[in-house]
Amino acid sequence: MKKGHQVTMKEIAKKLGVSVSTVSRALKDSPELHPETKRKIVEMANEMNYQPNLLAQSLRISRTKTLGVIVPEITSHFFASCISGIQDQANVRGYNIMICQSNENLELEIANIKTLVATQVDALLISLSRETNHYEHLFELYNREIPFVLFDRVQEDIPVSKITFNDVGGAYQVTKHLLEMGCKRVMYVSGPEDLYISKKRKEGYLKALKDFGIKEEKELIKVTDLTTEGNIKIAEEVLEMENKPDGVFCIFDPVAMDVMTLWKSKGVKIPEDIALAGFTNNPTSAVVEPALTTVSQPGYEMGKLAVSHLLDQLDGIASDDPISIVLETTLVPRKSTQTNL
Amino acid sequence: MKKGHQVTMKEIAKKLGVSVSTVSRALKDSPELHPETKRKIVEMANEMNYQPNLLAQSLRISRTKTLGVIVPEITSHFFASCISGIQDQANVRGYNIMICQSNENLELEIANIKTLVATQVDALLISLSRETNHYEHLFELYNREIPFVLFDRVQEDIPVSKITFNDVGGAYQVTKHLLEMGCKRVMYVSGPEDLYISKKRKEGYLKALKDFGIKEEKELIKVTDLTTEGNIKIAEEVLEMENKPDGVFCIFDPVAMDVMTLWKSKGVKIPEDIALAGFTNNPTSAVVEPALTTVSQPGYEMGKLAVSHLLDQLDGIASDDPISIVLETTLVPRKSTQTNL
Repeated sequence: MKKGHQVTMKEIAKKLGVSVSTVSRALKDSPELHPETKRKIVEMANEMNYQPNLLAQSLRISRTKTLGVIVPEITSHFFASCISGIQDQANVRGYNIMICQSNENLELEIANIKTLVATQVDALLISLSRETNHYEHLFELYNREIPFVLFDRVQEDIPVSKITFNDVGGAYQVTKHLLEMGCKRVMYVSGPEDLYISKKRKEGYLKALKDFGIKEEKELIKVTDLTTEGNIKIAEEVLEMENKPDGVFCIFDPVAMDVMTLWKSKGVKIPEDIALAGFTNNPTSAVVEPALTTVSQPGYEMGKLAVSHLLDQLDGIASDDPISIVLETTLVPRKSTQTNL
Repeated sequence: MKKGHQVTMKEIAKKLGVSVSTVSRALKDSPELHPETKRKIVEMANEMNYQPNLLAQSLRISRTKTLGVIVPEITSHFFASCISGIQDQANVRGYNIMICQSNENLELEIANIKTLVATQVDALLISLSRETNHYEHLFELYNREIPFVLFDRVQEDIPVSKITFNDVGGAYQVTKHLLEMGCKRVMYVSGPEDLYISKKRKEGYLKALKDFGIKEEKELIKVTDLTTEGNIKIAEEVLEMENKPDGVFCIFDPVAMDVMTLWKSKGVKIPEDIALAGFTNNPTSAVVEPALTTVSQPGYEMGKLAVSHLLDQLDGIASDDPISIVLETTLVPRKSTQTNL
């Protein structure tokens, strides 16, 4: 062990193969635990020279009644809805919130965490930036025992509670809908392949194909970098294909909107020539012509739930053990996939 | 003078009929001022028992490099754009930002200011809530010498710098456009009449009518409470009018969108039966059918300028004297006002 290194409950937990919450309860001498378990944990804590994090403890006592929120971008309607839910629920419970945006940038995400921790927020709600591919800053938060939860853009290995959508289910719903509307060749336009959400939505897409007895075709999965240029390039490529898809499901509504714009300019009829669907249910998707079939994610509900759970943990109502809350999505069928409308 | 009351530079300035910045320069013994002016100010400061606000001074020296931002709502595309501009410019100058939203609620606006001041932000950028009709909390900030600017939703009496749009000019542009398109009876759908923005846009509307030699008609100005129900009620009332308008200009795009939805459901042809225009240039306005004519407000630019000016003041590059920065708007003519498209 490094000199000056402060042993954390997490390390004790790992050493003994128990949960952090069990360690926490043992050190608080909770009557819920078996005396033998408690004895083992306390012994190990002494052996490892565990010192309770007094700073974290004092913060927990003298609360600022402020929560910090970090989102990738505020201009996204989805994250703005999450923030509204977070704020409304936080206010109900007597908390105020301060929001920082990472601009999808890892460095800024780290700076935001530093800023919010310096202002002594009681806890954090974080949705990771697209760029975030290492997680030291989150493990550091965890080791400093600053409470936080992850929502929507999460990382599976960090032992905190996570609130996500059933992305597999949503992608399954929309692909199944396209197949039920008579499409024989459904394409999936994915985001960057290492994105959690890209993988999950592909999983749902493939599951629906399988349930309809359709084989996966490599040329029917395309990857965009999510820029307008990238999205338009894909839309053009589709039109140049010899064996075109008759239905396209895009990972996000804005991708589908770019595809729609290009196709409309080339005289492609949607849905008659190719049906088109997105995922997110942005406000523009409802008013565009033809209105875009999509999958609705209740961002406001996600924000509310994330705060409720976090404050329950803070108040000792919920256990400190990390849990995973998965919200269901809803198919919103519109004109872009239905010739009969 | 109340016991324990700390005399501010503002009070000295008021007593002598000079600007706060002049007092500030005199107390710093600036060579720019006439010795006689300096002498008078220093004498008055002594007489009034002025004590420099050491807390404010120390804050100015030991900066947190963090700016606080308060907006009415983050879900509004316009305020989200302002925040993007604020953040980008703040980052360029080595600052991070923390954002709070007031939810258009005065109490929450006051709570937000307290939260941000408690976290020792170096300065604030504030856009007032719709409900804000008294201003003690802002005068208190001013008296505590915490630097701030107001943007978009401002209050004229508070002696800090303000960044606004030329609302008169924008409303003039859009009304003139409707008249040039051949409209004879142009209606203005206003927000609540005590809103600064309602008044300014009415001023532009009336100016355009006057320039075209058209008399103001009381029944051609309607007031909505800005709720969807309120907007739809107005849309219905217009259809019931004996002498209907042939062009309608709504104070905000969302109002125009509600009007459009109701009219489309009743079979009204836009623009053939009635031309329709908004103000803000929201993303939905470009994709709705027919696309909505509107006035574009560069929110991103507003945010950038607000930060630049505030940090220039903080760094002593710009004078502390409040200034007013007015940004021009741009007419965005679309299908909803042009039969020839």
